Amino acid sequence: MSGRVIIAGLGPGADNLVTPEVSAALAQATDVVGYIPYVARVSPRPGLTLHPSDNRVELDRARHALEMAHAGRTVVVVSSGDPGVFAMASAVFEAVEAGPPEWRALDIRVLPGITAMLAAAARAGAPLGHDFCAINLSDNLKPWALIERRLRLAAEADFAMAFYNPRSKSRPEGFARTLTVLKEACGDTRPVIFARAVSTPQEEIRVVLLPDTTPEMADMRTVVIVGSSTTRLIARSGAPIVYTPRSVPA
Amino acid sequence: MSGRVIIAGLGPGADNLVTPEVSAALAQATDVVGYIPYVARVSPRPGLTLHPSDNRVELDRARHALEMAHAGRTVVVVSSGDPGVFAMASAVFEAVEAGPPEWRALDIRVLPGITAMLAAAARAGAPLGHDFCAINLSDNLKPWALIERRLRLAAEADFAMAFYNPRSKSRPEGFARTLTVLKEACGDTRPVIFARAVSTPQEEIRVVLLPDTTPEMADMRTVVIVGSSTTRLIARSGAPIVYTPRSVPA
Repeated sequence: MSGRVIIAGLGPGADNLVTPEVSAALAQATDVVGYIPYVARVSPRPGLTLHPSDNRVELDRARHALEMAHAGRTVVVVSSGDPGVFAMASAVFEAVEAGPPEWRALDIRVLPGITAMLAAAARAGAPLGHDFCAINLSDNLKPWALIERRLRLAAEADFAMAFYNPRSKSRPEGFARTLTVLKEACGDTRPVIFARAVSTPQEEIRVVLLPDTTPEMADMRTVVIVGSSTTRLIARSGAPIVYTPRSVPA
Repeated sequence: MSGRVIIAGLGPGADNLVTPEVSAALAQATDVVGYIPYVARVSPRPGLTLHPSDNRVELDRARHALEMAHAGRTVVVVSSGDPGVFAMASAVFEAVEAGPPEWRALDIRVLPGITAMLAAAARAGAPLGHDFCAINLSDNLKPWALIERRLRLAAEADFAMAFYNPRSKSRPEGFARTLTVLKEACGDTRPVIFARAVSTPQEEIRVVLLPDTTPEMADMRTVVIVGSSTTRLIARSGAPIVYTPRSVPA
């Protein structure tokens, strides 16, 4: 008997941003694995075993899920946001590739979710309405030089940019460097959106111009969006609307 | 009395990828506006007026929605996918910025949805599991030279890439040029995913290596994802898994 692994995105936090597809998968699961705060979003019920684990043990967690599926369980691996964007789907496939051949025969499915940058963009207006890129600013798993190179090329390409994992307590300096690079490479009129804990009770959205940004405006619960050269602010009472027009004149 | 405009993402096609937030907004709407096939996804009911309109009239549609909201209606503007990604949110804000001052006082909200590239990525594995960019290949609203420049810089930055609107009947040559640029700028081992009509009964997912791609593999219902230099294929019986590892070695 062979089970399944379903890698499911819970969205950024609010229950009404969880797709019915993901809710149905959770209702059929025998086991849920994931980072502690994400597993805490799944309601306990008879027949379901929750396996919360700490941060930075993604490969162990992935192997555990695959082992349980191989033993016949229906395992849901939960991620916040979308599991394919800087989240658990890649970790599971890394484990599959390095693991025993029988893991390749398992039924493994990825269920998309609302990723943080799109929830954040929706709150601010439509800053990602034209071409954009998404960069994970954590240098745990890649060299800082590559991040800096991508930042400079993204600025040259005039992409709007979304940054995940901008700043942690253990490596606060990367985001400071990011802002320094952007202040050099981009104009002074770019709006920057700091969106923290979007769709949760702790949500905070802040819009500032690039020259006025400081590193401590972000933490690990923040997604940061930097406009392109064409991104506009619409002033009104309350927070301005930030959007990138669909057109770029010739 | 002032109404509201809610710009809502219906996801790529399947009903179980529509968020509960969007379903609730549709249940409260007095009017729904959008491109004909997207409005066709909304169930008629007493008290709801559907306003389907043709493609390429996004600004007229946006103004119509804003006028109705100003007259007190609760208007939902529907997009497929996410409304903030190459869709109606930017068009509505363009209309707001150019329109009468009273439109800025309206309650306008964007509700995110599952955008096509993330649904497509989930079907193939996790090709967008590391840094990536999203480019609209239509040159209706921007010069081809800018598209080509972005393609070359994205290749230099070694982003995975997702392409929207790759190819239409009226301008079939752009995607052919895109493939020519990529074949020049990227290695021969990049996997390319052609994901057509994801999550609908017409869904087709095809994975080929970059040198084997041809322009007619895409149409306007296709989203195309090109791996980065680190993207991997896991062979197995059936379709291979395509994923981009989380790490880049120093």
